[in-house]
Amino acid sequence: MNIKTLAKLCGVSVSTVSRAINGHPDVSEEVRRKVLETAQQVHYIPNDAARDLVSRPSDAIGLVVKGIGNFFFTAVIRAIEKTAEELGYTLVLHQINTDESELLAGATLARSKRLKGLVLLGGKCDYTAADTALLGVPFVCCTYRNSFGALEDAAYSSVTVDDTATAFAATDYLLRSGHKKIAILLPDRQDGSIGALRFEGYKRALTEAGLQPEETLIAETASYSLHGAYNATRRLVASGTAFTAMFAAADTMAVAAIRALYDAGVRVPQDCSVIAIDGISVTQYTIPALTTMVQPAEELGRGAVTTLIDLIDGRSGNRHITLEAVLREGESVRDVR
Amino acid sequence: MNIKTLAKLCGVSVSTVSRAINGHPDVSEEVRRKVLETAQQVHYIPNDAARDLVSRPSDAIGLVVKGIGNFFFTAVIRAIEKTAEELGYTLVLHQINTDESELLAGATLARSKRLKGLVLLGGKCDYTAADTALLGVPFVCCTYRNSFGALEDAAYSSVTVDDTATAFAATDYLLRSGHKKIAILLPDRQDGSIGALRFEGYKRALTEAGLQPEETLIAETASYSLHGAYNATRRLVASGTAFTAMFAAADTMAVAAIRALYDAGVRVPQDCSVIAIDGISVTQYTIPALTTMVQPAEELGRGAVTTLIDLIDGRSGNRHITLEAVLREGESVRDVR
Repeated sequence: MNIKTLAKLCGVSVSTVSRAINGHPDVSEEVRRKVLETAQQVHYIPNDAARDLVSRPSDAIGLVVKGIGNFFFTAVIRAIEKTAEELGYTLVLHQINTDESELLAGATLARSKRLKGLVLLGGKCDYTAADTALLGVPFVCCTYRNSFGALEDAAYSSVTVDDTATAFAATDYLLRSGHKKIAILLPDRQDGSIGALRFEGYKRALTEAGLQPEETLIAETASYSLHGAYNATRRLVASGTAFTAMFAAADTMAVAAIRALYDAGVRVPQDCSVIAIDGISVTQYTIPALTTMVQPAEELGRGAVTTLIDLIDGRSGNRHITLEAVLREGESVRDVR
Repeated sequence: MNIKTLAKLCGVSVSTVSRAINGHPDVSEEVRRKVLETAQQVHYIPNDAARDLVSRPSDAIGLVVKGIGNFFFTAVIRAIEKTAEELGYTLVLHQINTDESELLAGATLARSKRLKGLVLLGGKCDYTAADTALLGVPFVCCTYRNSFGALEDAAYSSVTVDDTATAFAATDYLLRSGHKKIAILLPDRQDGSIGALRFEGYKRALTEAGLQPEETLIAETASYSLHGAYNATRRLVASGTAFTAMFAAADTMAVAAIRALYDAGVRVPQDCSVIAIDGISVTQYTIPALTTMVQPAEELGRGAVTTLIDLIDGRSGNRHITLEAVLREGESVRDVR
């Protein structure tokens, strides 16, 4: 069985069969399904040579994921893999813990697997040119920018939301709902990464509203873990500090915080409002549904891969794409005006 | 900077540096961290030749993930990637939709990327020998077995929980809590996959308790999606059929079902009890916390990769590992005896 026979069986052209099998988006769902079903029935196995005639040479790019277990990343990884596949690239996956270096991991991966480029999903924002020289291949920072380091904009690429503006918008939403005592729940305000940027947005919103950030309302967890967020919120309540609202740095942290408040007899949103950043699907169904700033997961993943492949192919230089996070109103914020 | 100089700087042997950088488990956390931090400070880049001297040849295995967006899979994928890395293999990731064929996708991937083997995460349980001949490389079914097909046990490998026994245990827990009208929420009772197996476990538990499975208490969703589970539960309540408990085929489906019950004025667990299978971390923090059968995600992932690599290296023939799912009691089941 070769591709010509399969095309004849399906009543379409060889090029359509190839595009269907390789998942190109310009093939209709109906045709794609027909080709794949027929291919399976007749046990058709794509031939490398035939593939190479119609698709680009098969190249590999690496994805280094920092922050294992981040549910928000699940949707981003899906988009990265789909886009790489559509554009003819293989994706080599490597996950690291939050205390590991994405640059060292990326450099090792790129060399040992002879990768054409790297997407770094999650990382620090304080690179120098010497740090990134380690990598040796084109790379794109996905979900973060080099906001604190000496590395110049022209020397790297990124696809992100504006973390400071997004945290500002979340805090501002609480302020506009009449809240004044607003706690913040985040891993580390000085993480040299998005934690610091989101803390900055929180602070700015308070300052612009004529309020001072209060030290006793800052709950740091050291990680994005659920139990860390739960424990920090329990401690905050136990400290006796009064607050009527909380901004959590991630959806999952907000779920754990709402649970901690509930266990301490504080009802959300009646006694305390909660807002977060991420917009993962499951928090639309929790009780209460979470009010959150939705990051465009698919666009973040797709933008990272298209930017990387443009760099690899020399079609464009470094670029920075900033996407918008959009408010999704749930039931976790109460208007107290 | 070469590996010898780095080893001297760290005060350890060359072999320890190499094992630390390559993530071998026999290096203490303290030493690993010291080596990686020093490596980053001095901009050490691992040399391929040096790597190859101390580690095995770099080989790639493929991971075909069927069922994009399954939160339970996140933890399994993490374990698969970590184990592959530890054992010196690169992981090539490929995700497919639930209506695509994992065998065709795996065959294409294995050939075009010249993979040594495949882990299939999620798939159908009705293979024939002709189907799997497509793959052309050793493979392991992760989270499912070939329960409905003609493929013999000796002809493939798998790592799973016993889905029928796990669904039996979940349903039996509801029965032992005094429930008799027990609904089931699942994608498709005839999916030729784990849906069918879990339905079988549900049916058996009812039958053993002297009850008949009732057609009106079976809610099928066609997918594992949250909105599908939500809508099916709303329809079930609207149908007027009385039930005091529900067994959901997945944690995320249970979260959406609890929300649907809540929106229909049915309180969990006061008016209706809910149990599920999976045990994802976030459902420990939802309100109410979910009672569920926890699948051992890490052991599933680790077992799939070690089995695959044993096959690749010819160290063992095909084998089937069955792991235990363990009850995690939450707050979503009420004892009505």
